[in-house]
Amino acid sequence: MSEPADRPIIVLVRPQLGENIGAVARAMLNFGLTELRLVAPRDGWPNPAAGPAASGADVVLEGAQVYSSTAEAVADCAHIYATTVRKRGVTRPVLTPEAAAREIHGQAGRSAVLFGAERSGLETDDVALARAIVTVPINPMFASLNLAQAVILMAYEWSKAETLAQPTAEELLPPADQAELDCLVAHFEALLEPQGYFRPPSRATATRRTLRGILTKPGWNHLEVRTLRGVLSYLGKPRPDEL
Amino acid sequence: MSEPADRPIIVLVRPQLGENIGAVARAMLNFGLTELRLVAPRDGWPNPAAGPAASGADVVLEGAQVYSSTAEAVADCAHIYATTVRKRGVTRPVLTPEAAAREIHGQAGRSAVLFGAERSGLETDDVALARAIVTVPINPMFASLNLAQAVILMAYEWSKAETLAQPTAEELLPPADQAELDCLVAHFEALLEPQGYFRPPSRATATRRTLRGILTKPGWNHLEVRTLRGVLSYLGKPRPDEL
Repeated sequence: MSEPADRPIIVLVRPQLGENIGAVARAMLNFGLTELRLVAPRDGWPNPAAGPAASGADVVLEGAQVYSSTAEAVADCAHIYATTVRKRGVTRPVLTPEAAAREIHGQAGRSAVLFGAERSGLETDDVALARAIVTVPINPMFASLNLAQAVILMAYEWSKAETLAQPTAEELLPPADQAELDCLVAHFEALLEPQGYFRPPSRATATRRTLRGILTKPGWNHLEVRTLRGVLSYLGKPRPDEL
Repeated sequence: MSEPADRPIIVLVRPQLGENIGAVARAMLNFGLTELRLVAPRDGWPNPAAGPAASGADVVLEGAQVYSSTAEAVADCAHIYATTVRKRGVTRPVLTPEAAAREIHGQAGRSAVLFGAERSGLETDDVALARAIVTVPINPMFASLNLAQAVILMAYEWSKAETLAQPTAEELLPPADQAELDCLVAHFEALLEPQGYFRPPSRATATRRTLRGILTKPGWNHLEVRTLRGVLSYLGKPRPDEL
């Protein structure tokens, strides 16, 4: 896990609704980002609507710093990214969130990612402060990410290179070995043979091969094979009507 | 761009708030997903709160289909993923959204991704229908994704490979759909029940779930399932010593 000082700072430029600021805090903390900066929030700060929307990400809201201009908010940052879907008359490299996250992990110095106001986005002067533009590749017929969603995609991509709780396959057992599968196939065959499944004899070889193919396809583990052997034992028992 | 029939279906299981259903539709359409299915939405359907939250993604809401059970909602799907952060006593491979998206692009047959209710998530029986679990690697100290955010991360990952989408698996027979597998499971159960396999009753549910897990793991195709049904028919026939 990165030290806090190595994690990117999320900068909301002229955010409007407190609810959205809270939702951003929640989105951030899900992926381990904790430093939020607010540039000229429309309704002042603190904003009572932010807390409930943060759903417990209070630590992010409590640490949020307020600035009067974007330039001040990023004065201590070495790498500034501007998130925008619109061309802003500024020539900058355009990165996906994935590429930006890779850059952020690979470079020394603090990184900040700017997000604009809910409807209007970043202004040209904000974008001009940035080294690069981050644009989420999106459905050209329906581009309607809200602020917290744009933040969460960036935070999510950043977190991928972190050691958060990665799902692991360690609980998964390895596939059963060939000998166990052979026993399973033989068990099936022993039950099927007296039932006439392998008749006529001319087709028996192909039928056995098909059955083996089906039973060896899954890569069942030891426990799964044992369970199936149990199933077969039950199927081979005397039937209630025979007792 | 994928054909609509190749895109994953988003299935919301017992969603509560119409606002969240609308937000999911919006999240989906941003990344080109259009097919939404609702299992037993708490407040019925249509829900007047959904439209405003969809912010214009009406095409998704208008096409949404309602089902009374999860099994019905995925009956025509070959690959079912269950999104959950909690262990559910079901042994399945655990994938990141990225890995699941890669799988979905690489395989023939329709895929569905299940998302549970806002607070409670998916129930064990829902997860048991799935081949794999999708878990977003998240801050272990603050795991608080809302429904639309969970959906957007999955949709975003799926959309990444869209421009690269190539039809590779077309020669493979697609896996049998859920309805065929249900018949196979039921056939096994019908033979095992009179043999006492599901006794004592207190363990029957877990035993059924284990058996279903084993039988749905392989991704057998239609012909393979038919062969196995044939095997079961032979096993259920009167035995030679009974004749």
